[in-house]
Amino acid sequence: MSVTATSDQGSPLRTLFFLSCSTGITAETLGHSLMTQFESTPYQQVTVPFIDSFTKADATVREINRVASESGLPPVVFSTLVDPRIRRMLAATDCVFFDFLDAFIEPLERELGMESSHTVGRSHGMVDYDSYMTRIDAINFALANDDGVRAEHCQHADVILLGVSRTGKTPACLYLALQYGLRAANYPLAEADLDARRLPAVLEPFRSKLFGLTIDPERLHQIRNERQPGSEYAALERCRDEITRMQGLFAAEQVSFFDASTMSIEEIASQLVQLARIERRI
Amino acid sequence: MSVTATSDQGSPLRTLFFLSCSTGITAETLGHSLMTQFESTPYQQVTVPFIDSFTKADATVREINRVASESGLPPVVFSTLVDPRIRRMLAATDCVFFDFLDAFIEPLERELGMESSHTVGRSHGMVDYDSYMTRIDAINFALANDDGVRAEHCQHADVILLGVSRTGKTPACLYLALQYGLRAANYPLAEADLDARRLPAVLEPFRSKLFGLTIDPERLHQIRNERQPGSEYAALERCRDEITRMQGLFAAEQVSFFDASTMSIEEIASQLVQLARIERRI
Repeated sequence: MSVTATSDQGSPLRTLFFLSCSTGITAETLGHSLMTQFESTPYQQVTVPFIDSFTKADATVREINRVASESGLPPVVFSTLVDPRIRRMLAATDCVFFDFLDAFIEPLERELGMESSHTVGRSHGMVDYDSYMTRIDAINFALANDDGVRAEHCQHADVILLGVSRTGKTPACLYLALQYGLRAANYPLAEADLDARRLPAVLEPFRSKLFGLTIDPERLHQIRNERQPGSEYAALERCRDEITRMQGLFAAEQVSFFDASTMSIEEIASQLVQLARIERRI
Repeated sequence: MSVTATSDQGSPLRTLFFLSCSTGITAETLGHSLMTQFESTPYQQVTVPFIDSFTKADATVREINRVASESGLPPVVFSTLVDPRIRRMLAATDCVFFDFLDAFIEPLERELGMESSHTVGRSHGMVDYDSYMTRIDAINFALANDDGVRAEHCQHADVILLGVSRTGKTPACLYLALQYGLRAANYPLAEADLDARRLPAVLEPFRSKLFGLTIDPERLHQIRNERQPGSEYAALERCRDEITRMQGLFAAEQVSFFDASTMSIEEIASQLVQLARIERRI
């Protein structure tokens, strides 16, 4: 936790601190989301999770003040700290302090007609044993059904993703498991499937769960080329041909699909949840 | 998107709406984080992502008003909508409206000395090709080094997790890849390792990257029993014995470890980032 840096232009970099009594993930999410609205502002970030004692709070106070004085720029601090005493210590540093709880808790208390519990770090904490197992099972399901599905597993799948190699199926399945607790399988379409222009027999009974991912051939070429540079597998012509035939198969078999070329893993997963009209399991 | 439900007590359930022009993940994260402070409030949730047109905004306005009138409880709406016109339409519904951008953007504009860009949906969108590939590579790394590591991969690992079967290594590695872009391998300690009470030779050169996960034997028993009910593998005695010997190995070999029994996947990952003092890659 020792930072002072300069931007490419030599001027001091703004430092963002994400402070939390738990993992810091909520504070990071809030801060990153806000900073996307200020894209031309270069910054470096420091996450300080698990601030659950005055000792840790003290060390963080010193660090923020040090960065402020050395850089001459007050750090921007995003806090989800719950303990009011620790929060006050940090808010009093030489910084611009954004307090996530303060901003929203009071109006929520009014609307819900109750006081908040001031419970520490529950948001990304262990919720309960069942939710934990749902996530773990979903992850295991994705791993067991990555790069091909077993017929006996298909009936337990929430969604089954189809696409040629490197369209983003695996990360999407893992994200669906981790974030939503959903069981997602993936089936890589092979030459034989593309030639047949038909769904593999194993998938026939599960048409309602099938979703295709397509991708711009240039982009597929770029991705495959990182993996196997100069290979026939990565050749642009081959990518074009596979994509064309895959989209033909999707059309012939009436499989819903969408173009994931410019989508993040989160966007692909979120889009699938919408299209499949499925409820999250956690 | 059609919901009206009652709680166990028969009174109408509060409905939370998460509205976004992108995936809705930021709105969900922030909303869930706030609601953990009101644990006794039962609620159901509806996420409406990709609200990027007046048509979609209109449909959402009608749905919120319908839920309000049918349940008699104004829905609580968490919004990360960026378009001011769409935001105004939704804020005018019969709801309690929490606007994450509004609350913080103006003070941030003041501090950073610039106007925000009002860019839509960048937070969980595709950031750039390099970040995307970093995440994908990290996921592939975790998959290739799950349940055992290859010596030639260890030098590229950011962290290597050790633990007996079912201590939570795999989900932690996947989360480190997805959330932080970090390359995490995992090595399941087997009988032979526990008997030898030494690190496997393959790990010797990488001591600084090694972290152990331990777990309460009762909890391990419970988790293993879900997988292989009544098996010797899941027996409480066996779990106790493995954990005792594993902790002996960690102590003998001076491997840092921590107890993950009551930790979520996020907490384990966050703790590892702290302990290993590594920088996120995305």
